[in-house]
Amino acid sequence: MLGFKTIDYDKNGNKVTILDQTRLPAEEVYLTLKTAEDVHQAIKNMNLRGAPLIGVAAAYGLVLAAHQGNAQAVTKACELIQSARPTAVNLFWATERMKKRLQQAKDVYSELLQEARMIEQEDREACQKIGSLGAELIRDGSKIMVHCNAGALATSGIGTALGIIYTARQEGKNLEVYSSETRPLLQGARLTSWELTKNGVETYTICDSMAGTFMPEMNMVIVGADRIAQNGDVANKIGTKGLAIIAQYYRVPFYVAAPVSTFDFNIASGEQIPIEARHEDEIRKFHNKLIVARSARICNPAFDVTPSELITGIVTERFIVRPPYDSNIAKLK
Amino acid sequence: MLGFKTIDYDKNGNKVTILDQTRLPAEEVYLTLKTAEDVHQAIKNMNLRGAPLIGVAAAYGLVLAAHQGNAQAVTKACELIQSARPTAVNLFWATERMKKRLQQAKDVYSELLQEARMIEQEDREACQKIGSLGAELIRDGSKIMVHCNAGALATSGIGTALGIIYTARQEGKNLEVYSSETRPLLQGARLTSWELTKNGVETYTICDSMAGTFMPEMNMVIVGADRIAQNGDVANKIGTKGLAIIAQYYRVPFYVAAPVSTFDFNIASGEQIPIEARHEDEIRKFHNKLIVARSARICNPAFDVTPSELITGIVTERFIVRPPYDSNIAKLK
Repeated sequence: MLGFKTIDYDKNGNKVTILDQTRLPAEEVYLTLKTAEDVHQAIKNMNLRGAPLIGVAAAYGLVLAAHQGNAQAVTKACELIQSARPTAVNLFWATERMKKRLQQAKDVYSELLQEARMIEQEDREACQKIGSLGAELIRDGSKIMVHCNAGALATSGIGTALGIIYTARQEGKNLEVYSSETRPLLQGARLTSWELTKNGVETYTICDSMAGTFMPEMNMVIVGADRIAQNGDVANKIGTKGLAIIAQYYRVPFYVAAPVSTFDFNIASGEQIPIEARHEDEIRKFHNKLIVARSARICNPAFDVTPSELITGIVTERFIVRPPYDSNIAKLK
Repeated sequence: MLGFKTIDYDKNGNKVTILDQTRLPAEEVYLTLKTAEDVHQAIKNMNLRGAPLIGVAAAYGLVLAAHQGNAQAVTKACELIQSARPTAVNLFWATERMKKRLQQAKDVYSELLQEARMIEQEDREACQKIGSLGAELIRDGSKIMVHCNAGALATSGIGTALGIIYTARQEGKNLEVYSSETRPLLQGARLTSWELTKNGVETYTICDSMAGTFMPEMNMVIVGADRIAQNGDVANKIGTKGLAIIAQYYRVPFYVAAPVSTFDFNIASGEQIPIEARHEDEIRKFHNKLIVARSARICNPAFDVTPSELITGIVTERFIVRPPYDSNIAKLK
């Protein structure tokens, strides 16, 4: 399955190879990252994206730093990489875990490499478990709406939301996926349609604005997450909240799929989640063609926060978290 | 104000000049239409768009046919032009009105020209009246969300939804407009931001998916309409229904602005409104760049139907129609 590898650390070359997600679906190109700065840039420019994959890449970024320097170089690299993007908590979770390992390490490089490999392995296993648990929610013949890309491209495994879909398909269930294109960077159009059809899943791409039209036909919505607060509020790609409101209007179950590393146990509610504002040129121009009048201002928040009251359940690798979220999320600690 | 003219019939040259809306905001180019077939193509390819403007253009298309032929040529042209787009009822309203005039006409060309000029003049006046009536709804300092382009570019006057905004501004009210970019053809990004900033209105462009983020700050939403059923269900640009659902969730008033010619008194509810499906390449490619995997299917409905229960009021040139819609819309007949 899959037919691609999102990230790969090569011990001999001390380099990280990633699939460049900015060039899909037109071209399948792999990039070589040799320094922590390369990893920082790749995360910032979204050559790789997806909360779990950002965590794994950040960990390997510190391995690159450890190979070239000492503990101090790793600490410095850690600061740099953490500054790449503010919303996905997995970035901070993975780098903090690496820092903790660093503090106890005798052989810095080999121990950090071991830790990064563990983070990657755990992410892969979490995807499998999320897939199995989530697939139980899917009936044969379902129509499922997804948003952005919470797939294999967003993790080092089979994905979170799409991991559930792949698992259900392997179990022999028929299903159709409706994927919103996810402006401004079109992860749904470019990435989700690519990986789903590559893996034989029947896929329809729609514009984000078409969710209201197709929602009444859907059996469920499944999205990923970039950070989940203790009360179950979910930060995810911009547009998620609107989908959740529309799903509620039509009484369509709305699920989130994410590993435990996406939960932020330091944050009581979604209001405390920092929302990344990206450059207005991502919207003003498309392939250098001006699409918004120069004198108009542009807002480009990359994420929104879906209030937990709109969420039917959160599929983790441990169990499916359901309301009341405060007490049930606490059980994940 | 405005600084552009969407449509102009030249009696000496027997030609219609239109502002080519597909090339905005990068280029301000005018096209010359010499035959009914030219008008049909311009409507179909969306060189001009907007329900009221489509009605005016269709009327002049029949004038072009009348100048070159006889009554029979006009009837044939009418069939052709009516086939250009199925949803906007103004197209059928205007051409049926022209056909009625044709039946009684002695001098076909001069009488059809007179009728088309009346349709244009009435549209311009309707915009002014919608602007005045609607401006009463706007408080100083308001933030208003709009969708697609229901502006001067969509009519032969100052516009419907944007006509209200221009009028409120002229009355000295401060306001900020949030305009969704309106995929796939980006009328909001390309057209609304262009005409609003050209006329000094503070404008922010957002992606369609960002409505949920900005809705809590809004004082109202105003959109246009392509067809309104007897029960108040409104067909408008795809994405309108989702905005209305999100507005209701945040208790933000949701207004529609449209001339009486947009009401279809033959249709009981929105379920009977035909929805145009446009070509999938409008989504699959952007300036010839592939953005959706070739093997993924694409859905491209151009309109959706907002149920009347989500609509606070419909601003027409006669009065603001409020619930109960059945009885109050009947008063417009």
